[in-house]
Amino acid sequence: MSQTSRFWSAVTRSLTPYVPGEQPKLANLVKLNTNENPYPPSPKALAAIGGENGADAARLRLYPDPNADALKSAVARHFAAHGIAANQVFVGNGSDEVLAHAFLALLKHDRPIRFPDITYSFYPVYCGLYGIEFEKVPLDAEFALDPAPYLAPNCGGIIFPNPNAPTGRLLPLEAVERLAAGQPDCVVVVDEAYIDFSGDSIATIPTAIALVNRHPNLLVVQTLSKSRSLAGLRVGFAVGHPDLIEALERVKNSFNSYPLDRLAIAGAVAAMDDNTHFDATRKAVMASRDTLSRDLSALGFAVVPSAANFVFARHPGHDAGELAQQLRERSIIVRHFKAPRIDQYLRITIGTDTECRTLIQALADILG
Amino acid sequence: MSQTSRFWSAVTRSLTPYVPGEQPKLANLVKLNTNENPYPPSPKALAAIGGENGADAARLRLYPDPNADALKSAVARHFAAHGIAANQVFVGNGSDEVLAHAFLALLKHDRPIRFPDITYSFYPVYCGLYGIEFEKVPLDAEFALDPAPYLAPNCGGIIFPNPNAPTGRLLPLEAVERLAAGQPDCVVVVDEAYIDFSGDSIATIPTAIALVNRHPNLLVVQTLSKSRSLAGLRVGFAVGHPDLIEALERVKNSFNSYPLDRLAIAGAVAAMDDNTHFDATRKAVMASRDTLSRDLSALGFAVVPSAANFVFARHPGHDAGELAQQLRERSIIVRHFKAPRIDQYLRITIGTDTECRTLIQALADILG
Repeated sequence: MSQTSRFWSAVTRSLTPYVPGEQPKLANLVKLNTNENPYPPSPKALAAIGGENGADAARLRLYPDPNADALKSAVARHFAAHGIAANQVFVGNGSDEVLAHAFLALLKHDRPIRFPDITYSFYPVYCGLYGIEFEKVPLDAEFALDPAPYLAPNCGGIIFPNPNAPTGRLLPLEAVERLAAGQPDCVVVVDEAYIDFSGDSIATIPTAIALVNRHPNLLVVQTLSKSRSLAGLRVGFAVGHPDLIEALERVKNSFNSYPLDRLAIAGAVAAMDDNTHFDATRKAVMASRDTLSRDLSALGFAVVPSAANFVFARHPGHDAGELAQQLRERSIIVRHFKAPRIDQYLRITIGTDTECRTLIQALADILG
Repeated sequence: MSQTSRFWSAVTRSLTPYVPGEQPKLANLVKLNTNENPYPPSPKALAAIGGENGADAARLRLYPDPNADALKSAVARHFAAHGIAANQVFVGNGSDEVLAHAFLALLKHDRPIRFPDITYSFYPVYCGLYGIEFEKVPLDAEFALDPAPYLAPNCGGIIFPNPNAPTGRLLPLEAVERLAAGQPDCVVVVDEAYIDFSGDSIATIPTAIALVNRHPNLLVVQTLSKSRSLAGLRVGFAVGHPDLIEALERVKNSFNSYPLDRLAIAGAVAAMDDNTHFDATRKAVMASRDTLSRDLSALGFAVVPSAANFVFARHPGHDAGELAQQLRERSIIVRHFKAPRIDQYLRITIGTDTECRTLIQALADILG
């Protein structure tokens, strides 16, 4: 990336782009590196896509609804218990696009924004893209987020994943509310990519969407990539006060009128409506997470308590980078971040029970 | 749009978003307002989407290839006669997203960029989004683009559609090359959304992709929305020197790693490879365009010579806005721009021959 060109804009020259987890083209890998769901999407989503693709061969020739109203309504319907209306919903091409628009629309002010020192590594990239200053607020030694430092003056905005990535730790809803209430003049974005992997029932998932009608500065971002098994379809959404949604719409409509194609809208609507499949798969992942966490602990790993579809673990006697490499030699891919404070950890996606067992056996073999 | 909020960034407050052509949810309209193709996409594209959706139900749970290498290769294959390699291809979520990235990556410099006074109305919106100064260069009285004023000093970049929108006029390839050669230190973006509706054969389509290997400052943008009948799938691409492509990749990877979903990649690859369907549908549209242009002329319309899948026409004895309204009352939708110099024109998408006849009959009725 040292290449430059006189044709590049100054910002292009300055960028350090995000590097997504590897998407290897080899088959027969145990792929536990990008937090995909091990279970297939809702059969109703696949049927809806098939209908949109096949029932009327001419339909794909037409533009999709630029506002994706059907999907906004489906999201509002899903969160009806929290009193969400369709004009409180924004949709985009994966939650990464939604986050990008949120940075430009709502987090770009004269004061620096705040996010944890250990967090989703796309956040500083968005800041570089849009010229937003930021302050990294250290998590504590156990990777817990302390709200206090976020409440100091001169704050341009706050963003954090909940559960956090790549640690998997959940911040209680009371602490989220403390942040929103304590910084009423700046926007607090809660990136809930992994929130659905908590809660004994759908009604008790600890989403901050429950708070948006009390806090007009709170924007909650979710994705269909994880708990709805639709990483391949690229759909994310945000929920918040209509004024925040309007800001996102203004930026979106100044960038790309139609980010969601007809198939994505159809599949996403059906997925949001299929609570049965959603609840069954998220519970299966949660059960596997508990088993995997226990099995890793039994091998001597220290496992961070996870509320996500991955675990974050280190072994006091083995270098994490070397472990990742030894797993790769056994066709098992996990994620290892060469970053301060976390370079002795592995982030391991929850696979099927068979995949988890394969991983545990390989680790047992490696650890001797 | 007068609403604002203290949470909005300054740029959000300043934006005047793009307004896409209406996508009415009513059935039974003759919809000639957004330049969609009247014919269905390649059956091979629909089959490829079906395979990606159905053959392995688990596949959509996995992220797509963030680089969409299969599609870049398909685009390069399609333009092999022009010596295009996959590293000269960028792909995005519709050509609007590709254009947005091009504005930020390649057109944002200290000097103003230049585009025609009558052109795709998204260009000034992108400039507003990214803080790019621009100069509008007037087309001549017949809506032809004269290269000379674009060659003046202090140019930050050039962009124009070819054929132009909404006029449909084609700039000869020699003039495109004059622009690229005459401004070697700035990027010239040719937005070829409609280029495929010219040329007696695929080999003679007058695309500037034929020039990119001679001009490292030339970027050519195309879309699958028009000539491949895939407006509903959201796929566009750019072709140029690898340095220009690398700039687009850097911005894209600082915005959204996975803008193309698995279904869009699969369908687009198959569509780019199906030259038989492509050539048959583009020729059918061109034939209908000739008939429609003659029929409009017979009704007294002045029709701008079109190289696109639409015609731009005015009637000396009737107000264009009123004509559009009267057509709407007959369930026929065409596009009318309330803008200087063109507010007496209608932009009419080429429909099927039946749709074109319905339009001509309605106009004959209205004109009495």
